[in-house]
Amino acid sequence: MIQARKLKGFCDFNPDAARRRDEIVSSLRGNARIAGFEEISTPCLEYSEVLLGSAGGETEKEVYRFEDHGGRSVALRFDLTVPFARYVAENQGTLIMPFKKFQVGEVWRGEKPQKGRYRQFCQADVDIIGSDEISADLEVLQLIVKTIDGLLRKPFTIQLGNRVILTSLIRHAFAGITEDQEKKVFVAIDKLEKIGLDKVCGLIQKDCGFEGADIKNLIGKISDQKTYSSFTQDIPGVADEMMRFEKTISLLTKLTQRMAVTVKPNLSIARGLGYYTGIVFETTIDELPGFGSISSGGRYNELVSRFSKQEYPGVGGSIGVDRLLAAFDEFADPASEQRAGVFIAISDPAALELAFEVAEDIREAGKLCEVATKASKLAQQFKYADRRKRLHVVVLGTDELETGSFTLKNLETGLEEKGIKDIRELIQRI
Amino acid sequence: MIQARKLKGFCDFNPDAARRRDEIVSSLRGNARIAGFEEISTPCLEYSEVLLGSAGGETEKEVYRFEDHGGRSVALRFDLTVPFARYVAENQGTLIMPFKKFQVGEVWRGEKPQKGRYRQFCQADVDIIGSDEISADLEVLQLIVKTIDGLLRKPFTIQLGNRVILTSLIRHAFAGITEDQEKKVFVAIDKLEKIGLDKVCGLIQKDCGFEGADIKNLIGKISDQKTYSSFTQDIPGVADEMMRFEKTISLLTKLTQRMAVTVKPNLSIARGLGYYTGIVFETTIDELPGFGSISSGGRYNELVSRFSKQEYPGVGGSIGVDRLLAAFDEFADPASEQRAGVFIAISDPAALELAFEVAEDIREAGKLCEVATKASKLAQQFKYADRRKRLHVVVLGTDELETGSFTLKNLETGLEEKGIKDIRELIQRI
Repeated sequence: MIQARKLKGFCDFNPDAARRRDEIVSSLRGNARIAGFEEISTPCLEYSEVLLGSAGGETEKEVYRFEDHGGRSVALRFDLTVPFARYVAENQGTLIMPFKKFQVGEVWRGEKPQKGRYRQFCQADVDIIGSDEISADLEVLQLIVKTIDGLLRKPFTIQLGNRVILTSLIRHAFAGITEDQEKKVFVAIDKLEKIGLDKVCGLIQKDCGFEGADIKNLIGKISDQKTYSSFTQDIPGVADEMMRFEKTISLLTKLTQRMAVTVKPNLSIARGLGYYTGIVFETTIDELPGFGSISSGGRYNELVSRFSKQEYPGVGGSIGVDRLLAAFDEFADPASEQRAGVFIAISDPAALELAFEVAEDIREAGKLCEVATKASKLAQQFKYADRRKRLHVVVLGTDELETGSFTLKNLETGLEEKGIKDIRELIQRI
Repeated sequence: MIQARKLKGFCDFNPDAARRRDEIVSSLRGNARIAGFEEISTPCLEYSEVLLGSAGGETEKEVYRFEDHGGRSVALRFDLTVPFARYVAENQGTLIMPFKKFQVGEVWRGEKPQKGRYRQFCQADVDIIGSDEISADLEVLQLIVKTIDGLLRKPFTIQLGNRVILTSLIRHAFAGITEDQEKKVFVAIDKLEKIGLDKVCGLIQKDCGFEGADIKNLIGKISDQKTYSSFTQDIPGVADEMMRFEKTISLLTKLTQRMAVTVKPNLSIARGLGYYTGIVFETTIDELPGFGSISSGGRYNELVSRFSKQEYPGVGGSIGVDRLLAAFDEFADPASEQRAGVFIAISDPAALELAFEVAEDIREAGKLCEVATKASKLAQQFKYADRRKRLHVVVLGTDELETGSFTLKNLETGLEEKGIKDIRELIQRI
């Protein structure tokens, strides 16, 4: 006998979780479609080279990578954005730009599993490719905020950072900084909220050898909107990005004012993935401070040019479907499930065909209906219907076959109605 | 630059295909739920041992199998049934039996890619575990037939075989046959429709060394309902199975009489997978004779006992979502797409905020609406709206900002309406 076990960091979704997962995905699908976004789907497995081409070392070691039957180096995707860039490059001749898409799919990262964080998880992404406009940023942000707001019904915060502005501050703080050091500073600063100022300073000192005072000075600048606004206004390029950053924040605040969201600038949001080039964002639930981000993303203007001579600026964001699901669990309502639907009990095996026909009629009327799989003792069938939380039981047996009438029992009130004449009348009562 | 390419046998789904794929899945989801089936989801990656424990050699060599970071031998699932058996064994304490479930997910097989057959493909499975009753077989079969009928709207045929009866005929034809030979005979007979009598005989002669006349005699028996019915009526166990087989066919025929399906017994349907123990079935589209099966399955009463001391008889079937999608392509209607939805053109960058607000109002009224990503030349924006097949364009610019009124253009008729007073009136016209 083989042990029934799952891999560490992988999980099943039972009916309750699977249903709520589908609600999340359906909600995004509905909001995205009505805003003119179109769905695409790409394979889970790709050439390693396609996925890992230049994705910072941070990600690479977590990737599920192996050799396939044909000796090709292949990998399971770790996000939906890189395969999307490959898709755009491959289909650039036929796509109508700007192209607005959404995609839902599993991704894999061999990270240390934590509560609500798995090695396989579902992401729902929205992206606009082929536009570098602020309105594209806003469309993506608004769609994500609207979807989370509709699902969560709890206050949440979207924090926005900007890679251009942050890079400019870092380069000013450490003249002659190398690209590699820059990446390390990004990764350290991104941890500011999680590990605090002192540990971030320690990390940067250790990894890059910079002075503690300079690091604290930089983080002070990053953390104060007035300082970084006035600082950047004289730097060409960065000043424009700053204006855009502030406009994005003010417009997003206005457009979401009826929602339970706080829109907050926070330049320490740097994001681990290497491909971001402009705005970046993260979303957290106010009542779950240690829970981490449920949605993130940003602008990536150079990602497609990994695969194409033509540049296609892009912006996008992911909703962590399984993260959101785990958040729901934190708020779970302990109230018991409502009774619903009809169970058809069979007291005479000859009634099987009739049971199937009646069930189909009830289903066509839009009601959930299931048929007993066995003409066992009625008490047993009622017990099953009760455990399944059905509201009504219809009993079909010799009597019903002879008279053509039905008996209906309500499991909540215990009331029993006999002599229901026909299927139309039966459907009216359930 | 990295070449933008997919692995051989893997495909992307463009918006049109992804939309139809979602229609297939949504349809199954709706039909399954209303019949009391519940959704579950299991990981794509499992211990190799769990997936391959005793799955005939036919499958094993096609499985994507590798070593993960922790040195575990893991594999991508090749179907949804084996992981489901693992799920049942792991959750047997909490599941209410019989447990009726459905599951939609990707599976992987490193087969030779053919038209409409990929190395990653989506399956939608329905199963009932914990019941060995004919009504469970019927529930699964009816749900699958109903779903295909609703989606396909073309005549199709479901052919049913039975492993118990077939095994009995084979053992009678070849006294002393080994288990290994039996498997080979199964696999050969399953190819009867595809490669014909002579090649099947050749295969069995070559693989097992049996006499040609005996093989032809066996296949003659298999192909003639009268012969196998009368042959089996004296064999204990098999006679009951024969009665059940005939009852299943007659009931399924009755229950699906309003559908475009032909229900046909065919004992040569043997199915490649090793775990079937009773009824087996395959489904083909009448107008696409060489296309192959779009749905298949059967009864597997011993699968869970791979993982559990307790036996849980099960029955289930898969709809090949991507096979069905490929079938749709064969029937594709070349009629051009209908215009739909609203495009908001912006002629003054200051109108961006208003555009987003108007768009949300239109979406709340249930209409698709997208906003221009750029206040570019109006002619360009109209061209984009036209390529996107939008029906209406609303232009927002300096005038509209000042007067608060709207201009609406119908791209089909070319008609333009000016001076629409407010958003309510605008929504009425679209």
